[in-house]
Amino acid sequence: MSTLSEQILGAPAGEYLDRRVDRAFAHDGTGVLALEAWRAIGSGVFTDSDRRHLIFDHIAPANASLTADLQHELRAFAKEQKVHFSDVGGGVCHQVMAEGCVLPGEVVVGADSHTCTLGALGAFATGVGATDLAGVWATGETWFRVPETTGIFLEGTFSGAVEAKDLALAYVAALGMDGGTYRALEFVGEGAAGLSMADRLTLSNMAVETGAKAGLFYADETTRRYLAGFGHEVEVQRREVDGYPDEVTIDLENLEPLLALPPRVDTVCPVAEKEGVPVDQVFLGTCTCGRYEDLERFAAIVRGKTVKVRTVVVPASRAVLLRAVETGVLTTLVEAGCAVGTPGCGPCLGAHMGVIGEGEVCLSTANRNFRNRMGIGGEIYLASPSTAAATALAGEIASPEGCL
Amino acid sequence: MSTLSEQILGAPAGEYLDRRVDRAFAHDGTGVLALEAWRAIGSGVFTDSDRRHLIFDHIAPANASLTADLQHELRAFAKEQKVHFSDVGGGVCHQVMAEGCVLPGEVVVGADSHTCTLGALGAFATGVGATDLAGVWATGETWFRVPETTGIFLEGTFSGAVEAKDLALAYVAALGMDGGTYRALEFVGEGAAGLSMADRLTLSNMAVETGAKAGLFYADETTRRYLAGFGHEVEVQRREVDGYPDEVTIDLENLEPLLALPPRVDTVCPVAEKEGVPVDQVFLGTCTCGRYEDLERFAAIVRGKTVKVRTVVVPASRAVLLRAVETGVLTTLVEAGCAVGTPGCGPCLGAHMGVIGEGEVCLSTANRNFRNRMGIGGEIYLASPSTAAATALAGEIASPEGCL
Repeated sequence: MSTLSEQILGAPAGEYLDRRVDRAFAHDGTGVLALEAWRAIGSGVFTDSDRRHLIFDHIAPANASLTADLQHELRAFAKEQKVHFSDVGGGVCHQVMAEGCVLPGEVVVGADSHTCTLGALGAFATGVGATDLAGVWATGETWFRVPETTGIFLEGTFSGAVEAKDLALAYVAALGMDGGTYRALEFVGEGAAGLSMADRLTLSNMAVETGAKAGLFYADETTRRYLAGFGHEVEVQRREVDGYPDEVTIDLENLEPLLALPPRVDTVCPVAEKEGVPVDQVFLGTCTCGRYEDLERFAAIVRGKTVKVRTVVVPASRAVLLRAVETGVLTTLVEAGCAVGTPGCGPCLGAHMGVIGEGEVCLSTANRNFRNRMGIGGEIYLASPSTAAATALAGEIASPEGCL
Repeated sequence: MSTLSEQILGAPAGEYLDRRVDRAFAHDGTGVLALEAWRAIGSGVFTDSDRRHLIFDHIAPANASLTADLQHELRAFAKEQKVHFSDVGGGVCHQVMAEGCVLPGEVVVGADSHTCTLGALGAFATGVGATDLAGVWATGETWFRVPETTGIFLEGTFSGAVEAKDLALAYVAALGMDGGTYRALEFVGEGAAGLSMADRLTLSNMAVETGAKAGLFYADETTRRYLAGFGHEVEVQRREVDGYPDEVTIDLENLEPLLALPPRVDTVCPVAEKEGVPVDQVFLGTCTCGRYEDLERFAAIVRGKTVKVRTVVVPASRAVLLRAVETGVLTTLVEAGCAVGTPGCGPCLGAHMGVIGEGEVCLSTANRNFRNRMGIGGEIYLASPSTAAATALAGEIASPEGCL
């Protein structure tokens, strides 16, 4: 009667173990630190390079000479060690990995906190520090403490303009910013089964905002079909446990569009309560909500209209961009007045492509709204792509309910 | 028997005059300085706001908190003074102005040195300092010394893989970096008549690289048709002078693909002489070569192939991007592995979207290759879009002749 984390890691909650890592990755930010740590280890050994990825997404293309110098060094390293390398324009590491590089049952570590995103595929995926990643590069394994699990029971289906991001904010608010500390979240129930892979990735992505190590979905028919699209045949995973010592139940039917208020992810209220708050920028993108389905939702609302505030759209990957071009979604966004940036993290981390000024307000589809994150003295409201679209058209916070 | 500059300014070369300015614009960089100067003037008068433009292109979207703060202030100013405002994602000021905002015979000043680009439309267009622009804002006019003119006689038509950028490098090399100082260049002859508007914009754009105030084409049928596309009916301009005291003749037929070697724009050699030089980045874009026709040329060469080095593509405007999406050119570029950035100046000025590292080499379609321009310690080769495409595919400087 094991949880999914226990099944994958092969030991009961609370146990410490060393475990071979199936996939490991870093980005341009943490890759620099991991390289330094790997060199300090001094063995010169780099393991399993065909299962290691280096993905440039955080400040890609480079925004300054120092960034460019560090990326130059990392590129040479990636070539030397023959790792899978995704250069500027490839997209956010979590999305790139989700496009066929991670399978159910795998143990995945990434030197980025939102590595939990990949739990949507039925993998045990967690963020590690750059030094820990260097250890994985050198030895092929790392240690884990098998986490206790919190069950997130999802019931019903979305109604109106509610979508996965609203649900993500709802569970983060229910647990609080430390309610999941060192635990795994398992998203289960009929409501979970009905979610698309894009929605699952959004939900798993925000697990770390509760302090959780991982946020997992059991691989099912949706997972099978999704991975078949990348040429993988996988088996479904069976849930062995009925209940969990710690549980939260959310009825999707009863949700409404939500906002996380600055500066905490878990301070959440209905969009309706903040309608009319002026915004200076809208940002659609990131590992949370930069997938094709997110762009499509946004486009459905802005089609044929013009945004009233500057709106930055950053597709999460090259594949997302290509699909948006193919279906006309990109044209809709650009014609509506959006500025489309190179696939990657965009302005989420406040380093380029849409940093906000002092006193400016950004409504963002990303996952963090801490003080100064997107620019010193700026404020960030987190919301869904549909709320972002309604807000972009209104120039102030607006509910997407009126746009349906 | 006046030159085109004399006709437009209404006085003979050498004369000083005050002249009403038909169109004036600034970008996010110079706008900040112009605003400061305008405030220092203290009159509070802002003239002809319906013929004034503020266009965010240099670091757009913002790359840092200071940038964002300054842009925030400029946006408020643009709104207050009711000028035409192009926010992030709209494109490079010169291209935005060229899309229907400038007419033959107009006097245009822009607080950017490449304002000479707009001479392609038969306007007298020249770059001014931000303080001068503030004077124009306050009074509606500025002073000029009517320039002497150098005639650039163009004969024949392009052959092989030669295009406008090669011709631009050829005339800059012929005149040298100070060969046109305070002069106007007039592009005339059968070769000029045969050039498309995109090609003319490329040629006028680089006039300032010889020190010239302006680089003009006489409005002809090509100009009429181009501006009709923006709803303008214009008349052709007649050349009154047969010869010029200072003349250069270039036969397009005899040109070959050219390179400007770092760090001078006028140190030009055939691409063939530098084939095999490794490059770290290719950049396609800017007010020189970021138009649809440039992207199309690049795409024709990389279609179905994969670039070997990181390649940053930045469309010069929203209209360029939309057309590239519509025709499949954007898909070709993205599928080939290019990173496409938000319309604007991109990494041309080394502030974001592809700064190069120390010792790195960039082959760029832009207009300047001075030391450290795109990143400290980096080197820049200037070339045509087709040479850029051939180089991107080869990972080293390569002639496009082999790609035809």
